Amino acid sequence: MNIPASNHPRVVIVGGGFAGLQLAKSLVGQSVQVVLLDQHNYHAFQPLFYQVATAGLEPGSIAYPFRKIFSASRQVYFRMGRVERIDLIAKKITADIGELTFDYVVIATGATTNFFGNKNMERLAMPMKSVSEALNIRSLMLQNLEKALLTNDPNDKDSLMGIVIVGGGPTGVELAGAIAELKRDILPKDYPDLDMRVMDIHLIDSNARVLKEFDEKSSAVAMEELLKMGVDLRLNERVTDYDGKVISCQSGEVLPAAMVIWAAGVKANIPSGVPDAAMSGGRIAVNAFNQLPDFPSAFAIGDVAVMVNEDYPRGHPMVAQPAIQQGKLLSKNLIALLQGRTMSPFIYKNLGSMATIGRNKAVVEFPRFKMKGWWAWCLWLFVHVFQLIGFRNKLIVMVSWAQNYLRHARDLRLIIRPFKQSS
Amino acid sequence: MNIPASNHPRVVIVGGGFAGLQLAKSLVGQSVQVVLLDQHNYHAFQPLFYQVATAGLEPGSIAYPFRKIFSASRQVYFRMGRVERIDLIAKKITADIGELTFDYVVIATGATTNFFGNKNMERLAMPMKSVSEALNIRSLMLQNLEKALLTNDPNDKDSLMGIVIVGGGPTGVELAGAIAELKRDILPKDYPDLDMRVMDIHLIDSNARVLKEFDEKSSAVAMEELLKMGVDLRLNERVTDYDGKVISCQSGEVLPAAMVIWAAGVKANIPSGVPDAAMSGGRIAVNAFNQLPDFPSAFAIGDVAVMVNEDYPRGHPMVAQPAIQQGKLLSKNLIALLQGRTMSPFIYKNLGSMATIGRNKAVVEFPRFKMKGWWAWCLWLFVHVFQLIGFRNKLIVMVSWAQNYLRHARDLRLIIRPFKQSS
Repeated sequence: MNIPASNHPRVVIVGGGFAGLQLAKSLVGQSVQVVLLDQHNYHAFQPLFYQVATAGLEPGSIAYPFRKIFSASRQVYFRMGRVERIDLIAKKITADIGELTFDYVVIATGATTNFFGNKNMERLAMPMKSVSEALNIRSLMLQNLEKALLTNDPNDKDSLMGIVIVGGGPTGVELAGAIAELKRDILPKDYPDLDMRVMDIHLIDSNARVLKEFDEKSSAVAMEELLKMGVDLRLNERVTDYDGKVISCQSGEVLPAAMVIWAAGVKANIPSGVPDAAMSGGRIAVNAFNQLPDFPSAFAIGDVAVMVNEDYPRGHPMVAQPAIQQGKLLSKNLIALLQGRTMSPFIYKNLGSMATIGRNKAVVEFPRFKMKGWWAWCLWLFVHVFQLIGFRNKLIVMVSWAQNYLRHARDLRLIIRPFKQSS
Repeated sequence: MNIPASNHPRVVIVGGGFAGLQLAKSLVGQSVQVVLLDQHNYHAFQPLFYQVATAGLEPGSIAYPFRKIFSASRQVYFRMGRVERIDLIAKKITADIGELTFDYVVIATGATTNFFGNKNMERLAMPMKSVSEALNIRSLMLQNLEKALLTNDPNDKDSLMGIVIVGGGPTGVELAGAIAELKRDILPKDYPDLDMRVMDIHLIDSNARVLKEFDEKSSAVAMEELLKMGVDLRLNERVTDYDGKVISCQSGEVLPAAMVIWAAGVKANIPSGVPDAAMSGGRIAVNAFNQLPDFPSAFAIGDVAVMVNEDYPRGHPMVAQPAIQQGKLLSKNLIALLQGRTMSPFIYKNLGSMATIGRNKAVVEFPRFKMKGWWAWCLWLFVHVFQLIGFRNKLIVMVSWAQNYLRHARDLRLIIRPFKQSS
């Protein structure tokens, strides 16, 4: 990978998501050589993928080039590549762009969509774990409406105008709300010849409520708002099969839907080379220092790692906050390790959770109090703009949101690269 | 295509570029049924493609959905589809989305890249006549730099860091200037391990000067600025072959370049079904009313049409202004035709030409006077923002340009969909 030799120990970070990026940033200026490897040349802000998918934001507004982040840090090297194998004994990484030895490796490969073995879903449903996938959803949604205009067959029309979102976590709720707003504010004007009553937005979850990680009251608020916005909520329901036109449910119900968005689950993205013995429940088992117990020079942080303790018997939630906090702490622990000091155990500080359902509507839960409605929505906006990297992205997102809000606009309904089913 | 029957005559406009869009907009509210057919669901502002290609603007900032433009116009129908054949005698259009009869057809299919029969160029060089193609250039440029980091072979490095732009018209000049600015302001910080002196930007033109449609003084200004910015200008030169790594020139010179951008020529995009007898010099021959002499219900406007008169013995230039003016006039002429009045002949009003070379640098030519430098550049900015469709696009482009200018930034250097050579 053409990384120059250094007097400092080499830390290779695999993956530039919330965890890996935070670690790399926190190691800037320290006496280590950092190599950050990611398959993309940018960090993408996942919490806003749903806005890219629903024509509210441009992809460039929520993505930021790694090289710009580290342009002033001569000891941080970025390489764009896909990891193929990590040899924890030989301390060597193999990627599609070459090999690299390391003194320490930090696995921060995050999570990918979990279809739970359903092959038809994997082939035909739309995941949303990358910027490209979010753009695919935007394209397919618009392509289906264009096709619906061309048919007089009511079954085809039902299918082309049907959208099923599987999974009622924050992603599913936010998507359902944003699509319902498109249906209400934008699509009737865009497609006056389509009867928008035919367009059904189904949100399916196997639990008795959406946002199951939230308090029951927050779930109730979200469900009430979604119902008001015309979303068809189907709880205690599972999907069993999909043929590209009709989705089958466990209850026996079949729903016509040419687009199924899969937001039902994630699984850790485990690089080849991590031995089975180092795994627990599909994630990499780490000690309180995010260290692999049998490989002291290897660490795992974020979604890919599972750190079990009394408070979190099944590990921390696979969301941004633990990832960021683990990245930050690990930077200190690595320096401690190099200086012969003792490392500090990770203690998760739950800063709360939030989800927006739509215009002026959100739920926010802090450890000590809860919010909903307009104030919660303002806080949601503020926190998300604040977390974006870079002045330009913050500015453009604020301007875009102001325009979207004041003018009820979603001007990015563009099919720039048509979605082509790969099957 | 599921267009409802109407009491009004049906005008089918094929293509929503500058000409077709202007015509459709000018026909809003008139007693005609308008069907606008385009392969994209948005109008794209071609003069700024080069900024998308060089990470200065997002694609969504220069594209605007057709449906939004016509959302208040119930007698204008948009259909997304690719025309396959126009039957001028049976008055019928066949597209990939179905068939449609017409009372009048307006061919506004514009122009496409002309590789002048050079198959290797067509296969390996990058055209820039669509938003996707502009994004491909952005991706490939960045991918090549990522690859250049990985090699120690000086030949490979030369090739990966070499960029050849063929064609010194406004597009080629603007691209060369924008890439030279990236090389000067951005890339040394992004790629401190690459020796930027190795990166060569060649601009090749078969004429003795760039911007040959401009006055010689403007050409001289542009050439001087490009040379100052480090662009290698090769005039009176033609390219003969390309293998993806090295481009061969007529002079015998070979230049290493893993990226060749082809801005050397366009040709009219003639739909199948237009008889050879209706053509002249590769474009559709029209009379002074943009009408096909042998088919009074068929018209052609913009790049695809050639209207020969004393002032323009080879037709009007294939640029935006004649297209817009012809679209506007044809709307009046169609109404005149329907009302039994006589049509007015087209008289081209040359509003001038402009090209920007870079920061604070542009040349502007009006029929009566010429400008260059900072004032010309300000005028260039103003005219381009003004011509963009929609409040959001104007606003976002202004904000983006302010940021790019004040901070010497190009934050969109993102490889969102890697470019894959199709060969």
